[in-house]
Amino acid sequence: MKSIQAVTYPVLFQDKAYQKLSKLVEVNNYSTLFIMVDENTFEHCYPKFIRNLATDKRIELIEIESGEINKNIETCIGVWNAITELGGDRKSLLITLGGGVITDLGGFVASCFKRGIDFVNIPTTLLSMVDASVGGKTGVDLGVLKNQIGLFANPEMVIVDTDYLTTVTEREIKSGTAEIIKYGVTYDVNLFNEIKNNKNLDIKDLIFRSIEIKNEVVLQDPKEQNLRKILNFGHTLGHAIESFYLESEDKENLTHGEAIAIGMVCECFMSAKLLGFPIEKVNEVKEVVLNIYDKITLLKDDFSAIMELLKHDKKNINGQVNFVLLNDYENHQIDCKVPEELIVESMEFYNS
Amino acid sequence: MKSIQAVTYPVLFQDKAYQKLSKLVEVNNYSTLFIMVDENTFEHCYPKFIRNLATDKRIELIEIESGEINKNIETCIGVWNAITELGGDRKSLLITLGGGVITDLGGFVASCFKRGIDFVNIPTTLLSMVDASVGGKTGVDLGVLKNQIGLFANPEMVIVDTDYLTTVTEREIKSGTAEIIKYGVTYDVNLFNEIKNNKNLDIKDLIFRSIEIKNEVVLQDPKEQNLRKILNFGHTLGHAIESFYLESEDKENLTHGEAIAIGMVCECFMSAKLLGFPIEKVNEVKEVVLNIYDKITLLKDDFSAIMELLKHDKKNINGQVNFVLLNDYENHQIDCKVPEELIVESMEFYNS
Repeated sequence: MKSIQAVTYPVLFQDKAYQKLSKLVEVNNYSTLFIMVDENTFEHCYPKFIRNLATDKRIELIEIESGEINKNIETCIGVWNAITELGGDRKSLLITLGGGVITDLGGFVASCFKRGIDFVNIPTTLLSMVDASVGGKTGVDLGVLKNQIGLFANPEMVIVDTDYLTTVTEREIKSGTAEIIKYGVTYDVNLFNEIKNNKNLDIKDLIFRSIEIKNEVVLQDPKEQNLRKILNFGHTLGHAIESFYLESEDKENLTHGEAIAIGMVCECFMSAKLLGFPIEKVNEVKEVVLNIYDKITLLKDDFSAIMELLKHDKKNINGQVNFVLLNDYENHQIDCKVPEELIVESMEFYNS
Repeated sequence: MKSIQAVTYPVLFQDKAYQKLSKLVEVNNYSTLFIMVDENTFEHCYPKFIRNLATDKRIELIEIESGEINKNIETCIGVWNAITELGGDRKSLLITLGGGVITDLGGFVASCFKRGIDFVNIPTTLLSMVDASVGGKTGVDLGVLKNQIGLFANPEMVIVDTDYLTTVTEREIKSGTAEIIKYGVTYDVNLFNEIKNNKNLDIKDLIFRSIEIKNEVVLQDPKEQNLRKILNFGHTLGHAIESFYLESEDKENLTHGEAIAIGMVCECFMSAKLLGFPIEKVNEVKEVVLNIYDKITLLKDDFSAIMELLKHDKKNINGQVNFVLLNDYENHQIDCKVPEELIVESMEFYNS
């Protein structure tokens, strides 16, 4: 499979990628390789990774606990201290091996350690492969506010190896699928139709096409002035719902994809009401979502807390929530103001 | 006084600068201005600042506790939470009003909040005026390790107003003087001679010239490949000494300048031994330093702890400490390896 050239680095696929990584390590003469894993990727992904890496450099493992709940600045402090104690210097390389928590947090940790060391991302979940391979976003949560602290920073290389997907749960695969649906409805309806028809899906192709789309979008609009905002489709309300479930002690957390899938259904509904997005397409998206994900019922009593979280969305300006909505598939409109009643109505539509 | 154009922003002097700031706020239509102060700058600097700022934007004060001990990631978390609770968004502007702790930490806080908001620095101490006005370094300490966590980020504008210097102690003025001496011995011996002769010193001129020198150096070598390393002169050993006093419970902390002054004397001595830097100039630097600063006696028992801290210097590679030393005034050599015994000997020379 050929590679994808992101703005300053390549996204490499499957086994040959490890040769390139070994070469990178050699050429840059890194002093130490710090491999960041969690307990799951250490057990299931690290053995393959280390077998494929050819280097005589010192290797140190940094293990953090899995889970979004640990994607915070306190975990970063722990990692910074660990790297310091292990003698990390400016010529150290940090390699992240894991899902979005590991890649987002690891990129942030590397970018701030001694004002920046190189890093390489190896996403091991479908979500992180299709979402975090390009775009340069790093960051951690502040309390329940997702990615509130972070910065833009590019890795030296990304390796996408679908072998790692055999190690993750069905639920995690579904979580990544939501992002593929997003690329489909906002940018390439053929991709959406593939998911909808759900026949002979080749996961490698879906991943490649998703990364290709995100890369096209980011290269065309690196500063998120217009087109890149489509990547937020479903995420404005979706993030608020995700945060709400994360902070609710009596509710099970949703995966990112489960929350974003609900967000997409709701934002399609808002699009229909505000921009004339065809109602049959709203129903189509809802049907695809409900075919994949269990129905969650959003309680009326919870609406106000979700609305409150919406106010902290990173894209808000002057307290005004900004949605990116759809005129049609592959046709978006940015900076849409949505009345509170319509946001509530959209959640009721999802529930119905 | 004319302004200095740093890489992407201006350094503006005295009262007219506030008009430019008011204009910047208007042009960029910021949603909220967050002014970061400590208890001292709130009392002594904020009244003048706010009198001179012409804006109808919402203004929120963020007060942190003064002192290097608070230049850490925990303080950042407190500020991020405060800005979040006060409704900070991507169009917020952070204005730092204080010494190096405030400007370094504030720049880091702004650069990581929602992946980066604009900031303006208004240094109020001599040290932060001459050291932090250009160069783009932001950061905080990790434990006793100075500036271990941070990144390069440029403010929108820097305002240097020497009126604020009337609010700081004699000891703080002396702390900044060490950096001026550094610019002198490494880049402009006339500046060093002015300090040495100590007659009719015009502090405004010294500040202007210091910023001008640092700016020339940074523009010529933004990536710290060679010339920029002169800015670390005296700092390699100086930082270790500063950290050592910071972490010693039974010793009074040194100011940054006091530690760097010792570092410069020691590194001049190393330069003499390794590079033939003239011994009479070593003595000249030592004399100037001891004319300004009280003599500190470095205890033999403390040498090993200081050597240990040296090993965490950010410039080290593969555990090897890298000094920038002098062949002569205005003539440096980078990446000098110094035997441990000579480092110890240099501290004994300072003591003698």
